[in-house]
Amino acid sequence: FASRLPNVGTTIFTVMSALAAEKRAVNLGQGFPDFDCDPRIVDAVAKAMRDGHNQYPPMAGIAPLRQAISDKVANLYGRRYDANTEVTVTAGATQALLTAILATVHPGDEVIVLEPNYDSYVPSIELAGGKPVFVTLEAPDYAIPFDKLAAAITPRTRLILINTPHNPTGTVWRAGDMKQLEDIVRGTNVLILSDEVYEHMVYDGAPHESIARYPELAQRSFVVSSFGKTYHVTGWKIGYVCAPAALTAEFRKVHQFNVFTVNTPMQFGLADYLRDPAPYLDLPAFYQKKRDFFREGLAKTRFKLLPCTGTYFQCVDYSAVSDMTEADFSTWLTSEIGVAAIPVSAFYHEAHESGVVRFCFAKQESTLATALERLARL
Amino acid sequence: FASRLPNVGTTIFTVMSALAAEKRAVNLGQGFPDFDCDPRIVDAVAKAMRDGHNQYPPMAGIAPLRQAISDKVANLYGRRYDANTEVTVTAGATQALLTAILATVHPGDEVIVLEPNYDSYVPSIELAGGKPVFVTLEAPDYAIPFDKLAAAITPRTRLILINTPHNPTGTVWRAGDMKQLEDIVRGTNVLILSDEVYEHMVYDGAPHESIARYPELAQRSFVVSSFGKTYHVTGWKIGYVCAPAALTAEFRKVHQFNVFTVNTPMQFGLADYLRDPAPYLDLPAFYQKKRDFFREGLAKTRFKLLPCTGTYFQCVDYSAVSDMTEADFSTWLTSEIGVAAIPVSAFYHEAHESGVVRFCFAKQESTLATALERLARL
Ligand SMILES: CSCCC(=O)C(=O)O
Ligand SMILES: CSCCC(=O)C(=O)O
Repeated sequence: FASRLPNVGTTIFTVMSALAAEKRAVNLGQGFPDFDCDPRIVDAVAKAMRDGHNQYPPMAGIAPLRQAISDKVANLYGRRYDANTEVTVTAGATQALLTAILATVHPGDEVIVLEPNYDSYVPSIELAGGKPVFVTLEAPDYAIPFDKLAAAITPRTRLILINTPHNPTGTVWRAGDMKQLEDIVRGTNVLILSDEVYEHMVYDGAPHESIARYPELAQRSFVVSSFGKTYHVTGWKIGYVCAPAALTAEFRKVHQFNVFTVNTPMQFGLADYLRDPAPYLDLPAFYQKKRDFFREGLAKTRFKLLPCTGTYFQCVDYSAVSDMTEADFSTWLTSEIGVAAIPVSAFYHEAHESGVVRFCFAKQESTLATALERLARL
Repeated sequence: FASRLPNVGTTIFTVMSALAAEKRAVNLGQGFPDFDCDPRIVDAVAKAMRDGHNQYPPMAGIAPLRQAISDKVANLYGRRYDANTEVTVTAGATQALLTAILATVHPGDEVIVLEPNYDSYVPSIELAGGKPVFVTLEAPDYAIPFDKLAAAITPRTRLILINTPHNPTGTVWRAGDMKQLEDIVRGTNVLILSDEVYEHMVYDGAPHESIARYPELAQRSFVVSSFGKTYHVTGWKIGYVCAPAALTAEFRKVHQFNVFTVNTPMQFGLADYLRDPAPYLDLPAFYQKKRDFFREGLAKTRFKLLPCTGTYFQCVDYSAVSDMTEADFSTWLTSEIGVAAIPVSAFYHEAHESGVVRFCFAKQESTLATALERLARL
């Protein structure tokens, strides 16, 4: 029978993690920490299970977690999402993205994607019957070409997908970018799906420019985030989406027939933990230290550093080292040098070579040191 | 903006659970146990978290859990699904169903649904752009009209959805039914999506007729099950799908862009627990006792009992009590009598009244006794 996704293989993150494991390489490919979470959060989940919180939660998420999310977003970004009608707990951010797309994109609708982009976006659009329309960002600064973005909007445009801090490039949107987006969508019916899973990883004292800070944008937007990234529990698969009530109602129609609900004990554990702002307020400094350590090391190699102002990803230009394609270079680096990376070309929809690969620095300093030692040999 | 699911409201299970909570009714509506799971399984998950199993698992699920699933299915039903290429762990059965439908149904394809049916099936088909084709089962025995099923197959039929043990009717397929299905699909390209989440709740010594027992059917089928139902942890949202490698490959293409992966510590906890067959082998006797207690009590009321040979649902004909519609009667029963039920009409795609409602008996005997006391007053 015919595939619904004929152009899709196994996601690059799975492929490179498998290769890294096989070759015993230091895995700086797939984005996940190699250190553990706060034991307090583990205890809170264990307690929830022992307290008998093991049956279906409410479809949209347990009330205390939705309330804690609403409070956090209000405190940080100044928008109060109603906990009952505007906040939904999801089985991670990827599920939130597919669900929002299925809930809003009709067959034939156009969805604007800024590439390079996280690899779930385009298949999700295709499953909804939508048509991805690409606006391309280029190394080394990956600035948003707002003129091209404006020109890409047509009467069939249903959605613009944005992502800040940006995976894979490590760039972040500034207030001026948000204002330009505001100008572009004003007077249209275009919705925005904003992937903000790295919201707590913005460096050098800059703020995270959440869509939630911009009322004109927020009223037409889904804002997606992830506890997995923020709390070092990528395997817990729990995130959330905030959106105005009308959008949330459509989101939940699909959500209830996708996962129906999200893991109950994890929700109870997180509801308590989220009340303490310290863990996420401390996160920028925590990761900036790793970024700085990693960049200092890389500066002594033949790689050229690209800017990194957010996320836990560092892109490098390897053109002084090799003229292989990004995919070949990543495979070679993993197999022969023992450091796994992700080719940035995997985030573009067609052949696109810039001689850039992505490293994840959400690792212990000793892991980064081992990787740097190997990379310095090049 | 236009809804993708204009005819969909909030799922009946959520609506009735909310009403039950508001009215402090005994909630025999939504299907979930009011007793707790085995503390061993809680300890196993807590240990997995403490052992640091908190980051992304492999996309298809952790190897020991896939292997334990493969072994269980082989032992019980005689088919060996390859743990690497034919078993995928999902965030519950509902997510497995949507994912299988998105992976196989192209816009315009027909999908045959035997109604009454679980309420996620039809919206899932619609989100894929498919067209549901209904074959209707009727109270009191809800026998499968195989002639009508055969007649419903056209060159556009992509999938037949089956569900045994059957929610909401509590009926189960027998070997003869499976043979008839085999005859009907032989020589066609029709795939089967088999929802077997109540596989361990078949009563009176009868076997569960899994698709996995029937090679001719299994080679064209997705078989879906759920740990939530089997282990009294409906809130853990973890299930699985077994399917031949070619079908699994397409399933995983969508799965990886839906939830990407499933909760890691839950998977580790379950992998151990699943090695012990006692909990699921003991389940028929455990639930049959509840069924018999509940039926004995209902026999003393003015409700007419329908057969219940599987699931944890008991349907009753209330026509001697009231001539309200099923929806009105369920609401009234919840609000005025203090016992929540689900109208079976909610499982049909258009107005369909048989004077039948569904009770869930996955409850402590004391809960069932309270409900029976209230129902006896009618
Ligand atoms: C969900 S895949 C792994 C994490 C990730 O988002 C990435 O590496 O880009
Ligand atoms: C996922 S909704 C609740 C459980 C259920 O399947 C049912 O009540 O029919």
